[in-house]
Amino acid sequence: MTLDKNWYTEEWAGQGSAISLKIKNKVHDEKSPYQRIEIYETETFGTLMTLDGLVMVTDRDNFIYHEMMSHPTLFTHPDPKRVLIIGGGDCGTLHEVLKHKTVEIAEQVELDERVTRVAEKFFPELCESNHDPRARLHFADGIKWVADAQPGIYDIIIVDSTDPVGPAAGLFSEAFYKNCHRALRPRGLIVGQSESPLFHAELIASVHRSLKSAGFLEIATLNFPQCAYPSGWWSATLAGKDGPVSLFRSREAATKTFTTHYYNRDIHAAALACPEFLRRLLT
Amino acid sequence: MTLDKNWYTEEWAGQGSAISLKIKNKVHDEKSPYQRIEIYETETFGTLMTLDGLVMVTDRDNFIYHEMMSHPTLFTHPDPKRVLIIGGGDCGTLHEVLKHKTVEIAEQVELDERVTRVAEKFFPELCESNHDPRARLHFADGIKWVADAQPGIYDIIIVDSTDPVGPAAGLFSEAFYKNCHRALRPRGLIVGQSESPLFHAELIASVHRSLKSAGFLEIATLNFPQCAYPSGWWSATLAGKDGPVSLFRSREAATKTFTTHYYNRDIHAAALACPEFLRRLLT
Repeated sequence: MTLDKNWYTEEWAGQGSAISLKIKNKVHDEKSPYQRIEIYETETFGTLMTLDGLVMVTDRDNFIYHEMMSHPTLFTHPDPKRVLIIGGGDCGTLHEVLKHKTVEIAEQVELDERVTRVAEKFFPELCESNHDPRARLHFADGIKWVADAQPGIYDIIIVDSTDPVGPAAGLFSEAFYKNCHRALRPRGLIVGQSESPLFHAELIASVHRSLKSAGFLEIATLNFPQCAYPSGWWSATLAGKDGPVSLFRSREAATKTFTTHYYNRDIHAAALACPEFLRRLLT
Repeated sequence: MTLDKNWYTEEWAGQGSAISLKIKNKVHDEKSPYQRIEIYETETFGTLMTLDGLVMVTDRDNFIYHEMMSHPTLFTHPDPKRVLIIGGGDCGTLHEVLKHKTVEIAEQVELDERVTRVAEKFFPELCESNHDPRARLHFADGIKWVADAQPGIYDIIIVDSTDPVGPAAGLFSEAFYKNCHRALRPRGLIVGQSESPLFHAELIASVHRSLKSAGFLEIATLNFPQCAYPSGWWSATLAGKDGPVSLFRSREAATKTFTTHYYNRDIHAAALACPEFLRRLLT
């Protein structure tokens, strides 16, 4: 079959494959100083945001990504108080981070203020915590932010970035990880989205090598489904400045007082399991 | 963007979404007595088989599905000797089942002989065990096969079916599960593909209810990624005739002597973790 003009299609770069979502209409289209931001109302995925033609977030399935970019890392850290989010302009990760009562300050450094302003209008539920007194939104270059950061200031750094091309490429480099390592307190953790295990296993291996070279002690990749991202399967790679990442506060995860839709204690442990092909590549 | 005629597209029924694979050429097209069978050479997914226009198997990602339809169940059973596969015409599941040395007989009951003959030609690696002396290929109606089966003859029944529409609908019914229950030996297990957790959570809940009504003691759903199936996330539901399904021979899974590409002991345990939204639906 051929899809008509009522479909939005993203070709998964270099993968000879594509996903399409049926749209009702386009409700926003702008060129910010950094990228083209488009918003569609889809037939079954709710609202869709794309950046330069790539799917960033849909109402229907963003819960998995945002929960997995935050809760495993927050429950791995013994007492997370100060969190830095690089990117994350739709504010969904920030919203999840602030569900943790231990967090005193969550700073978000997004390059493109327009992404956040558009998200506030079209994804209000993701932006519900933007005015939490613990939230601090900055619009700046995350790479420079971390390079300039006071040493040992953050407990957790979350890299909620776009793909490792263009401005986001530097967020996957050893130089960036070294700066993150320095900006973290003892027992600090970094986590970054690390693309698809099926499509980008080599990238994941390279992220592991760079984190190791940058001084991180233990590294693990979390796997989770993400329908609207390439291959429908996604990952985040977690590293500990000087401590383990395979143990977590499982009792607290099991008795958490906030609601999630994907994450729970068992899912946390499950996400750490490494598929055989990836295990072979990483060892 | 719009995809040209060099793409194969499957619209995910009722889900306002679709996947496309870029094709080099179509190498086979026939109408069997049951369905249309097409084979394409794709650009990056190797060979693709579709039945009535729905993706069944690609070279690139079938390993996850076939391993997860077999090894978790085989390693859950204490001593699987006789296995029945309903459907499974591409023979990939049969190939995985026969990696287990305890298996003495693996019977496969596929409705459409042409699917198997076409798979033998275009997916030879999936059919490598078709001539194993323990393999018995039957081309018949699986629903009738189980209804007529001798009571207590099988250790494991694997339902490797198409979607629950048309001829496969009966493979999701309580009546069918009752016949399976009778055909299983004590400690016997049934596992069936149960669609996408994201798209078909209600179906999974209904499968749980039907298995329970049919007399199965314990039921669990296994989750795993499957790029080319709807939502990129798939499931299999496993049930025990009179025993548990959450425990497995983990030491033997960890020291297995055959090669897998997705499955290992940790992945087995991980697949049993139930996402929060599904847990709420199932309890």
